[in-house]
Amino acid sequence: MSKIEKNNTTATLLMHCPDKQGILATVTRFININGGNIVYLDQHVDREENIFFMRVEWELANFTIPREEIEPMFDRLYAQKYNMYFRLYFSDYIPRMAIFVSKMAHCLYDMLARYTAGEWKVEIPIIVSNHPDMREVAERFGIEYRYIPITKENKAEQEALTLELMKEYRIDFIVLARYMQILSENFINSFPHRIINIHHSFLPAFVGAKPYHAAYERGVKLIGATSHYVTTELDAGPIIEQDITRISHKDPVSNLIYKGRDLEKLVLSHAVEKHIQRKILTYHNRTIVFT
Amino acid sequence: MSKIEKNNTTATLLMHCPDKQGILATVTRFININGGNIVYLDQHVDREENIFFMRVEWELANFTIPREEIEPMFDRLYAQKYNMYFRLYFSDYIPRMAIFVSKMAHCLYDMLARYTAGEWKVEIPIIVSNHPDMREVAERFGIEYRYIPITKENKAEQEALTLELMKEYRIDFIVLARYMQILSENFINSFPHRIINIHHSFLPAFVGAKPYHAAYERGVKLIGATSHYVTTELDAGPIIEQDITRISHKDPVSNLIYKGRDLEKLVLSHAVEKHIQRKILTYHNRTIVFT
Amino acid sequence: MSKIEKNNTTATLLMHCPDKQGILATVTRFININGGNIVYLDQHVDREENIFFMRVEWELANFTIPREEIEPMFDRLYAQKYNMYFRLYFSDYIPRMAIFVSKMAHCLYDMLARYTAGEWKVEIPIIVSNHPDMREVAERFGIEYRYIPITKENKAEQEALTLELMKEYRIDFIVLARYMQILSENFINSFPHRIINIHHSFLPAFVGAKPYHAAYERGVKLIGATSHYVTTELDAGPIIEQDITRISHKDPVSNLIYKGRDLEKLVLSHAVEKHIQRKILTYHNRTIVFT
Amino acid sequence: MSKIEKNNTTATLLMHCPDKQGILATVTRFININGGNIVYLDQHVDREENIFFMRVEWELANFTIPREEIEPMFDRLYAQKYNMYFRLYFSDYIPRMAIFVSKMAHCLYDMLARYTAGEWKVEIPIIVSNHPDMREVAERFGIEYRYIPITKENKAEQEALTLELMKEYRIDFIVLARYMQILSENFINSFPHRIINIHHSFLPAFVGAKPYHAAYERGVKLIGATSHYVTTELDAGPIIEQDITRISHKDPVSNLIYKGRDLEKLVLSHAVEKHIQRKILTYHNRTIVFT
Repeated sequence: MSKIEKNNTTATLLMHCPDKQGILATVTRFININGGNIVYLDQHVDREENIFFMRVEWELANFTIPREEIEPMFDRLYAQKYNMYFRLYFSDYIPRMAIFVSKMAHCLYDMLARYTAGEWKVEIPIIVSNHPDMREVAERFGIEYRYIPITKENKAEQEALTLELMKEYRIDFIVLARYMQILSENFINSFPHRIINIHHSFLPAFVGAKPYHAAYERGVKLIGATSHYVTTELDAGPIIEQDITRISHKDPVSNLIYKGRDLEKLVLSHAVEKHIQRKILTYHNRTIVFT
Repeated sequence: MSKIEKNNTTATLLMHCPDKQGILATVTRFININGGNIVYLDQHVDREENIFFMRVEWELANFTIPREEIEPMFDRLYAQKYNMYFRLYFSDYIPRMAIFVSKMAHCLYDMLARYTAGEWKVEIPIIVSNHPDMREVAERFGIEYRYIPITKENKAEQEALTLELMKEYRIDFIVLARYMQILSENFINSFPHRIINIHHSFLPAFVGAKPYHAAYERGVKLIGATSHYVTTELDAGPIIEQDITRISHKDPVSNLIYKGRDLEKLVLSHAVEKHIQRKILTYHNRTIVFT
Repeated sequence: MSKIEKNNTTATLLMHCPDKQGILATVTRFININGGNIVYLDQHVDREENIFFMRVEWELANFTIPREEIEPMFDRLYAQKYNMYFRLYFSDYIPRMAIFVSKMAHCLYDMLARYTAGEWKVEIPIIVSNHPDMREVAERFGIEYRYIPITKENKAEQEALTLELMKEYRIDFIVLARYMQILSENFINSFPHRIINIHHSFLPAFVGAKPYHAAYERGVKLIGATSHYVTTELDAGPIIEQDITRISHKDPVSNLIYKGRDLEKLVLSHAVEKHIQRKILTYHNRTIVFT
Repeated sequence: MSKIEKNNTTATLLMHCPDKQGILATVTRFININGGNIVYLDQHVDREENIFFMRVEWELANFTIPREEIEPMFDRLYAQKYNMYFRLYFSDYIPRMAIFVSKMAHCLYDMLARYTAGEWKVEIPIIVSNHPDMREVAERFGIEYRYIPITKENKAEQEALTLELMKEYRIDFIVLARYMQILSENFINSFPHRIINIHHSFLPAFVGAKPYHAAYERGVKLIGATSHYVTTELDAGPIIEQDITRISHKDPVSNLIYKGRDLEKLVLSHAVEKHIQRKILTYHNRTIVFT
């Protein structure tokens, strides 16, 4: 998977701070004078909150600062001065992702098809499920499948076990591909803004269970799907991506469920892709998704 | 407006009843054997509720039953036997519509542009408002504008006055084009499923006031608009039409409001159009919108 | 796969004929008086060509005409009288589909995921390719993969071989899932309106090779995909389904290709689904796709 | 219209040049060190052509360089050095727009509704038409209407007359709102990339006359509209905006024409809006449309 040549390695800086005149010029100048060739820059100023957001990516080939010193240097020079939050990523580190799934295959297939086609710079070493059903799919793609059944009684210890597994497999982020379990606060806090869920409605409409049934009852003309980071409040985390499709009176609930699958799989995959590409910043329960 | 030639006059039957084998054949046969040439037929069976819905339109030119006898005859022959709800419309009756508006012009312009271009078979004899602002627009199109200011104190009597006006102008249905007043139960019940509202969100998300602000707060990636029949529960009536548009982190609330206008005007106009064309049936707080 | 219970077997009639008063009543009456319970009916009248189209499906459980006699009886009673084209299908016959593929996996995965999830009432006994690349995918799903390399020199005989294979596997229709070979007239005529292709543009724009490059050159703001029946004129057959996605100046050709994949796979799968469901009629190089 | 306060006046720079390390930092630094507060910055690098594009907007309130000296200074300091194309605009200059129209009102109404609602920072002093039909609409909005009938014989002199009129009214750019005349090369060259047209198809499909009829014939499932700058090649100029809507076999040509109107008016208005906001750059027959 990691066929990126050394010479093309890039550093990506994701940051936000209170907006101040000259911040963009300062950061880009820092990269430029140290020999970094910027290959991507996108920024956004939230004029209501007065916050400056930026994603900038530059080639390390002729960058004069050693990679392990970039972060401390940046921290020393700017972070405190500008009251800046930032994250630094290197393109030759391939993030490691776990998929949690229950009984439905559509999101799983969509992601694994992209993964095996080499479309995503990610490693997927493990699939976790509270049901045995998807083992066959995992095996088709040669990915470790761990069946961890959950009951009311064993939930806490099974979660502990799962957390262990995440550590063991050095998992960076988790994708809930129609995983029908509510994670505990403890679990969620172990992966802050690093658990991506797909909810089968255009949130905030139809929070919780059986959203397609609720949509049918309400008589909506559009159904949707929403991918978001999981927070401790159910279906209320920062939204990454949403989409809808048109339905009509001719569609019974079973059609909504069926049509919704295409929405769910694309919305989830597109959100995961943006996460892998380090293109998402969160702020006050909202996301900045750079293009 | 009423340039429909006598010879082309059609009758339109909108109906629903418990589904029964042969109901479609029975009704179409009734039309056929009496010399009616069917120019439109669409039907739908709700298999969960087991209800049959149909819209059928036929030319009256060679129809042997006099138009004033169709309804009683149909009632006698079928309605009771099949426990049928039905409405009969003739194409040479031009329905009369009132527009209620507050301070925003976009929906008003969109409808009046279609109206004056002759796209809608409707008469719009009057525009009612709780503000004087839109008088100029009404005058541009030569339509009577009635300014009926509403305060907490005078609301009941002003509504009574408005109802009188509706009677005087023989209004068949009312369109709320961003009318910022909540109608009383009494008023709504005077026009059951004959008041069309536009709400500036994809209902049931963001019911009530300031939905764009709420959408911004929640960080959604899509904003929507919903046209529905007004019932006594706020923003909860049968949905006729919905649409959405994509937004991003770059859009402050003011942009949502601005982008939303195009949604609102098209969604409302499309809903009104379907109503004018007698293409909507309601059942259990949901709509069947024939194409 | 064929877990449909005998009792629920239905017959589906797809037909068109010159429009005539009473045709709908006649056909539905025929079904009704012989004990058939209609579970689906949709019809359409093309008022410009004056053609009546219908799809009607009824349960055979209490139908008094033996299934093998329905077609001849219908032919005798109505087809000639009304100058009618019709096809009759029984729901307990599972159509057999072959997939032709070259080197790209996305459409293949999307279809096989639906297939193995049991979403489609179809059998896919074979995948044919002019390249060996997709063998691994086929094997993952346990489907026979036949590698039939094609050069200018051997094209005719390889096609003959392929046709033999289609016969051997009793293939009803073929899906070209980004199959990068132009089929001969002879081959196409062996499967009239039974070969479904996906073209990676919104036809008729960008016919032929490299449509994404052409789209980039032209500077379009939308890219599309089109599924159509293959006819002997390149990319000019009856269109079944189309969709588009938005692009911007930020998207180089490689992005168009990448974004286009999601379009291609959904548009193709939706078209194949409609074909499997016997919901498509073609007339004068256009399709009627019943909902 | 020009209610922008002096203090809030901004300068907007639109530019492109061969990409070079440091160009972004250089320009933003120039603005910063001279006291300009940047309120908008968006840039794009075309990596295939290796061209850097930028739109930057800053407040003039504390900018130390007098406004009339910005352009020459920028030219002297950077334009030649970087082989840069640039345009400078000030927010207190309200651009002047002419609308050319033939017989259809929908685009005209949509633009005039936005204009009179104060949504667009533009002046529309004149509407030109080769037909008298739209005079009434123009009068409704109190805008000068000039009827300039065109025949094969008088085309050249009528165009000369029209050009005179544009000069007299100091017109900056022209919007063809379904104007059914082909402009001469001479006329087009007088307004390079300053004539915006709406074509009623998703270009490059269905170039030329009667695109809806052609779309119907081809049996497409989507119809579109395209707004573009007019160049001397018919319907081949740089595309600004496109959109589509779904149709089905149920839609005769008349429906395509009708449904297309909503597309046309929104696509055109959105394109005009971007032009007014100085958010469009063109390069090699393609547009960069900043968000």
